Amino acid sequence: MEFTAQMIAQFLGGSVEGDPNAKVNTVAKIEEGFEGALSFLANPKYTPYIYTTHSSIVLVNSNFEAEQPVRATLIRVPDAYGAFAQLLDLYAQAQLPTNGVEQPSYISSSAQVHPDTYVGAFAYIADGAQVEQDAKIFAQVYIGRNVHVGQGTVIYPGAKIYDGCHIGSRCTIHAGAVIGADGFGFAPQEGANFRKIPQIGNVVIEDYVEIGANATVDRATMGSTYIRRGVKLDDHVHIAHNVEVGENTVMAAQCGVAGTTTIGKNCMFGGQVGITPHTKIGDGVRCGAKSGISGDVKPNSTIFGMVAQDVSKERRVVAVYKNLPELARRLGELERMVSKLKSKEE
Amino acid sequence: MEFTAQMIAQFLGGSVEGDPNAKVNTVAKIEEGFEGALSFLANPKYTPYIYTTHSSIVLVNSNFEAEQPVRATLIRVPDAYGAFAQLLDLYAQAQLPTNGVEQPSYISSSAQVHPDTYVGAFAYIADGAQVEQDAKIFAQVYIGRNVHVGQGTVIYPGAKIYDGCHIGSRCTIHAGAVIGADGFGFAPQEGANFRKIPQIGNVVIEDYVEIGANATVDRATMGSTYIRRGVKLDDHVHIAHNVEVGENTVMAAQCGVAGTTTIGKNCMFGGQVGITPHTKIGDGVRCGAKSGISGDVKPNSTIFGMVAQDVSKERRVVAVYKNLPELARRLGELERMVSKLKSKEE
Amino acid sequence: MEFTAQMIAQFLGGSVEGDPNAKVNTVAKIEEGFEGALSFLANPKYTPYIYTTHSSIVLVNSNFEAEQPVRATLIRVPDAYGAFAQLLDLYAQAQLPTNGVEQPSYISSSAQVHPDTYVGAFAYIADGAQVEQDAKIFAQVYIGRNVHVGQGTVIYPGAKIYDGCHIGSRCTIHAGAVIGADGFGFAPQEGANFRKIPQIGNVVIEDYVEIGANATVDRATMGSTYIRRGVKLDDHVHIAHNVEVGENTVMAAQCGVAGTTTIGKNCMFGGQVGITPHTKIGDGVRCGAKSGISGDVKPNSTIFGMVAQDVSKERRVVAVYKNLPELARRLGELERMVSKLKSKEE
Repeated sequence: MEFTAQMIAQFLGGSVEGDPNAKVNTVAKIEEGFEGALSFLANPKYTPYIYTTHSSIVLVNSNFEAEQPVRATLIRVPDAYGAFAQLLDLYAQAQLPTNGVEQPSYISSSAQVHPDTYVGAFAYIADGAQVEQDAKIFAQVYIGRNVHVGQGTVIYPGAKIYDGCHIGSRCTIHAGAVIGADGFGFAPQEGANFRKIPQIGNVVIEDYVEIGANATVDRATMGSTYIRRGVKLDDHVHIAHNVEVGENTVMAAQCGVAGTTTIGKNCMFGGQVGITPHTKIGDGVRCGAKSGISGDVKPNSTIFGMVAQDVSKERRVVAVYKNLPELARRLGELERMVSKLKSKEE
Repeated sequence: MEFTAQMIAQFLGGSVEGDPNAKVNTVAKIEEGFEGALSFLANPKYTPYIYTTHSSIVLVNSNFEAEQPVRATLIRVPDAYGAFAQLLDLYAQAQLPTNGVEQPSYISSSAQVHPDTYVGAFAYIADGAQVEQDAKIFAQVYIGRNVHVGQGTVIYPGAKIYDGCHIGSRCTIHAGAVIGADGFGFAPQEGANFRKIPQIGNVVIEDYVEIGANATVDRATMGSTYIRRGVKLDDHVHIAHNVEVGENTVMAAQCGVAGTTTIGKNCMFGGQVGITPHTKIGDGVRCGAKSGISGDVKPNSTIFGMVAQDVSKERRVVAVYKNLPELARRLGELERMVSKLKSKEE
Repeated sequence: MEFTAQMIAQFLGGSVEGDPNAKVNTVAKIEEGFEGALSFLANPKYTPYIYTTHSSIVLVNSNFEAEQPVRATLIRVPDAYGAFAQLLDLYAQAQLPTNGVEQPSYISSSAQVHPDTYVGAFAYIADGAQVEQDAKIFAQVYIGRNVHVGQGTVIYPGAKIYDGCHIGSRCTIHAGAVIGADGFGFAPQEGANFRKIPQIGNVVIEDYVEIGANATVDRATMGSTYIRRGVKLDDHVHIAHNVEVGENTVMAAQCGVAGTTTIGKNCMFGGQVGITPHTKIGDGVRCGAKSGISGDVKPNSTIFGMVAQDVSKERRVVAVYKNLPELARRLGELERMVSKLKSKEE
């Protein structure tokens, strides 16, 4: 795909300054620009780059005033960053495969797959599954029995959705993610191996959710594991059985949430955080990377630490922690002084 | 599948109280009951729910005495929880696909696949592999050369078993799990990139083992990595080359065990625990979530911590840790007092 | 494959002592030897095993002198360990599938796949992809549009390479690894769900790189995520968008590197290490397992800890940490003593 400055300006309702036939086929940061790339300038910090960039076209704010000659063709728009984001969205959308069913694929005769969808080769769609309009089921994806995949949802290569799970609309599920594997439940048996507790619930993923590559969301023992609307889970995140992750909550890579824990809305978790089972995390909680959460957390708390506590308290603790040998030395010194004072007195 | 109260009572040897034609097609917790669901009441704590539940049928202990009218049909059995578990097992078993080979799949002419097995579409069974009776090889699974899959073992979609690995009977391997990838072994070379040490061993998984979604068990450099009978590994667990995990040991999600470590029987590890290489963990060890184990651990120890130690000791340490700034303040105060005492004396 | 002592001796330029027709078809450690296995003896610590080993053939250094009768056939070579490593390499190489395209597979008519490659069944090679000579694309692998796979690179079953990524020569990518999934970037929107920031960059993996099973390397937001020549990433490692991992750096399992961080050459990271975004790690850094790195690290540092610092300092800190309750007790004791001294004085 190649676009001229004129085509882009028309689409954005902007005006061209320079060569209206300048062509681009990709985008780049202004400081890393090259022939054929489109860039933008919004943050004044980057202004010097507009005089040196090799990008062919640069989007600038309407009020931008060049103080030196500019080689690139400029397109003036009211909001250069917003316009760039709009073009990126279009570009990303255009990357998705066009609708159609590649062969060989396996679609059960009892599955309902909307005719306007993409189904890649080696994808498997089991009995009773429903796939809504404009869903993109990439190659090698597995859609279990009675799974629902909502409108416009994109499931990347090799993701696996177990039987009975529900995926909402406009979701993105990345390669290797596994939705609906068994919760980890075993009952001890006198003098024998553990006995598996059947996991007969499912996973409900609401609309606008993103699930990262190789992430896992386990099915409920009974009932449902819930990933609420707008949640974003990064790669390798693990959500155990019967967990609920509240609306718009964001978890960075490699976080793990143990069974039956509930997490509120609008929370943010750094990477590698772990949360114990049966824990309640309030709305709006922020938690630093690598923290361990082993008890309920009040709404709007900001916490951190191996045994997570209030972040400002933990920071002061860490400062002392890093000087523990000095603290121990001072204590020993005091002991010697006090012992001397005491012996003098006697 | 739909069952009447009468059918269930007959199967369990129980007696119906209410409508023998009441029908159920799923199960639910008594407090979340709905039309068409079967629940159970065993723990007296949940007794109030029996008067309000919307479940159609509830299993109760023979000696249960209703103190108010009950809308649901009851089935009285000697052990309501046990009977419910028995039904769940049946239900779970019935969810497995019936035997047969879906097309297209790839089965080498030199593989021995028992005729009473399920092989899903796009599954790959390589030269010399053996698949025993009632194994369920789901779609998109990879079974490498000379791999053995025991009787009744279930391998969920997209799991990958590398060449030469041995999977016992009645195992469950979840989607995305990788068994037998190379151990992580590289030798430094003077003035050049690392040199890969060929990993020519395999993985031996004994009977009744469960391996979680997206977990990995690496093959041995030479010899075997062993996962003993009855071991349960949760999602994202990593077992490195030449490790041995002892019988009935259980590891929660995202644990990682480094190379050549041996872990005893009947151990339990919380999530995100890490264990260093060449470490020996005795039988019956319990280890709290997120711990780091960097030395041998005696049998039956209970440990916790970033540098794991006895859990009761670590708990007392953590209590002081959380108050380190106060400790430092008290130390400073003492220093001032002692310095004053000392100066008066001089 | 079966080899006689004579064939092996000829290949290695060594001399046979014992039965030149002794046959082996695998290798084993000398202490775990069995009929049909080849072992080696280099470290004198293992010398006693040569008199008891059940291996059929043992490679020994030219100057080895037996002090008791040896049952195994010996092959004398100048460097027994080096010769064994050489045989292992050959053996490992011979395990790779021979070139050819299995059916059914999906190769776009616009893809360029060298005729001397292996493409397994159910592999998917998209439009515009290039696969160079002697690459091994195992079953169920996904190669996205315009992906480049270099000469001799091995991609194990079910690995997924998203559109536009570049994989160098002689790389090994294990099963379940995902290269090029979206970076984790979302912009908050007033009163609405997060807005996805399109991730339109790619991943560049240079030559001689190994990527472990179920590892993930995310594509750049713009530009490239770089995995430099000779890097080795273990299973479950996560590399976020726009990260650069320098030449020959090695990361053990379950490490996570957040966005836009740069890591120097020749670094080594233990397992489960986490690194915050926008961090700069110098060349030659060594970091202990489970550490959290939250700031820039100078070249050649050796660091450790939840809030990582110099390892020798952290070790002293940990020693005090483990005795914090005793430290607190001593402090309390001192307070009592000083208070007594003070009251006497008054």
